[in-house]
Amino acid sequence: MLNFEFKNPTKILFGKGQIEKVASEIPANAKVLMLYGGGSIKKNGVYEQVKNALKNFEVVEFGGIPANPEYEILMDALKIIKSENITYMLAVGGGSVIDGTKFLSAAALYKGDSPWDILKNAIKTEVGLPFGTVLTLPATGSEMNSGSVITRRETQEKLGMGGPGLFPQFSILDPEVVKSIPQRQLANGITDAFTHVLEQYMTYPTGASLQDRFAESIMQTLIEVAPVVTNDPANYDAAANFMWCCTMALNGLIQKGVPGDWAVHAMGHELTAQFGIDHARTLAVIAPSHYRYNFESKREKLAQYGKRVWGIREGDTDAIAKAAIYKTEAFFKSLGIDTKLSDYTADFEGTAQKIAKRFTERGWLGLGEHKRLSPADVEKIVEMSY
Amino acid sequence: MLNFEFKNPTKILFGKGQIEKVASEIPANAKVLMLYGGGSIKKNGVYEQVKNALKNFEVVEFGGIPANPEYEILMDALKIIKSENITYMLAVGGGSVIDGTKFLSAAALYKGDSPWDILKNAIKTEVGLPFGTVLTLPATGSEMNSGSVITRRETQEKLGMGGPGLFPQFSILDPEVVKSIPQRQLANGITDAFTHVLEQYMTYPTGASLQDRFAESIMQTLIEVAPVVTNDPANYDAAANFMWCCTMALNGLIQKGVPGDWAVHAMGHELTAQFGIDHARTLAVIAPSHYRYNFESKREKLAQYGKRVWGIREGDTDAIAKAAIYKTEAFFKSLGIDTKLSDYTADFEGTAQKIAKRFTERGWLGLGEHKRLSPADVEKIVEMSY
Repeated sequence: MLNFEFKNPTKILFGKGQIEKVASEIPANAKVLMLYGGGSIKKNGVYEQVKNALKNFEVVEFGGIPANPEYEILMDALKIIKSENITYMLAVGGGSVIDGTKFLSAAALYKGDSPWDILKNAIKTEVGLPFGTVLTLPATGSEMNSGSVITRRETQEKLGMGGPGLFPQFSILDPEVVKSIPQRQLANGITDAFTHVLEQYMTYPTGASLQDRFAESIMQTLIEVAPVVTNDPANYDAAANFMWCCTMALNGLIQKGVPGDWAVHAMGHELTAQFGIDHARTLAVIAPSHYRYNFESKREKLAQYGKRVWGIREGDTDAIAKAAIYKTEAFFKSLGIDTKLSDYTADFEGTAQKIAKRFTERGWLGLGEHKRLSPADVEKIVEMSY
Repeated sequence: MLNFEFKNPTKILFGKGQIEKVASEIPANAKVLMLYGGGSIKKNGVYEQVKNALKNFEVVEFGGIPANPEYEILMDALKIIKSENITYMLAVGGGSVIDGTKFLSAAALYKGDSPWDILKNAIKTEVGLPFGTVLTLPATGSEMNSGSVITRRETQEKLGMGGPGLFPQFSILDPEVVKSIPQRQLANGITDAFTHVLEQYMTYPTGASLQDRFAESIMQTLIEVAPVVTNDPANYDAAANFMWCCTMALNGLIQKGVPGDWAVHAMGHELTAQFGIDHARTLAVIAPSHYRYNFESKREKLAQYGKRVWGIREGDTDAIAKAAIYKTEAFFKSLGIDTKLSDYTADFEGTAQKIAKRFTERGWLGLGEHKRLSPADVEKIVEMSY
């Protein structure tokens, strides 16, 4: 087991009817900026519930944060934070709204010239403007971690940021929101959370038995609830397990003491930046090719995963490991998620070279758990994903 | 899944060589009370490491906190905290030292007449004197939770306390301490952690699939590492998994969204208070009888546990559930832990009646996950444990 440090101070309020507690989690006299996305919260009743709970606060609203939160739009919100002297933010939405709010949390207190530098130079935020979240779309785990990914449209870039100052102070997780989520988003959420676990698990053994089993527990539970959630999103227990799995998949716990890969995300982000493909779908496109390309170094974990998560009993280590990749692809497909880039765009030629070139330019010369996946390797993996 | 709130702000520093980081976790200019137990830390090198790390702090020492931390002794430490104007405490030890430090954290800022009232009246501590821990004995999980159990010798009482102000600010978990722990304590630690999981798991199904699997993960890992840790405590990975299992068994995570039993602990505490039997061993004495007595209401979870944790495949639900209890007893015995009260004392007659009477006097009229285990039931369970 590798050495680690772990601290996650976010308070979770989980369950039916928890949204009304938002008022007791925000400091009295706070001037609140309520952030949300395209307006789905106005259809599913969450907007009403939150506004009602905040009736004793001074609240300014900022809606319209898009999927893959865009820097240009967030800069408009930043102006409001400053002009309105906002003291607290409340993100009401999914990962995009929460990630956007994290960027604002950092940018509001940033002393430098341009907040873009926080992303470009990977500046860690030690103290941010405080914020809480009301999660409406389980997927990214952003509600209980301190990371964020922001897109800049003009340069087609998608970059990460983070720091201990960017944990939400609280997050409200009411599984009843799941019943109004469109099928496409449910499938994305399951795939996103599943791939988050894979990025922290599908590396090489380090004797971290408990972390391995926790990771396997999340994947087993996602596999168990996926057909229930997608067929009947009003099934409360399935929705609750789905929601808690998404949070636990990326709140730091299963990452501790083990190596992380994250090359699938690095490549996937490029496909979103270039083609606008949903984040989760880019992961389903890249992951199978990534595991096939890196089969030798991931064989042991692939086989452990095949045995424990998919119950594959027949064949030697190689056969079980290979079957596990097929099972993973089949799982994504069972959710209606296509697993080849050509399923999403006819314009895929040259993508691999373009991504490899960008990684070279950024100095991303060694990705993955061994930090030895070169841009040339990346090019081959993306080509295998066409 | 039941509604829940979860917040655990303790920072964990886990791994080899982490003890030296203690200095960077304690505020500069703090006046530190360093608390420890019977002196084992002076034999295994931990005392030296901590003192060395704290060389730039003003440090007062208080050693001699016994297993089952005693109120009378802690009151001596409280006098020192007040007379020396201590601003920070560092517990260096196992659950007893940490629990004692938590009592002091609460008592140091308590405004009432007698700190015993904190225990007697179950007063929740919202803000305590800040403290960190260096864990030397994995078992109780006290290093990452806000609960504490204190013993009063004069009245043979063992009572719990807690509150959000009693989380350690940080805990240092170096698995290398495991190699110098006596066999008896290793066996106790494994049994204690295992039973902590059972108390939160062995109730009835609530559709909390992820929590169930996390609980099973901890038990599976403890079963896997138990023979390795006890035969070769210098095996680092086994020690690390053992240590992390103990922490995860009682840091709140697996308790969220599910009912808790905790009747085994309530009865077990009485056996420690009356006979001085090691805490973990009292749990091993009570648990099998408790599960047999409450077989009807726990059957489903017993069977799930039998199948998933012990791999029992043959027989119907009843048979698997019964076999699971036998497996649990056999596991404790494999660690050298006796599972009957008569193995520990010849003076057991009347114990059941005495415990039932005390519970009646305290108004503990409905224990367990259904809150319907009466003192008469308790009497029968304890009798079955003779």
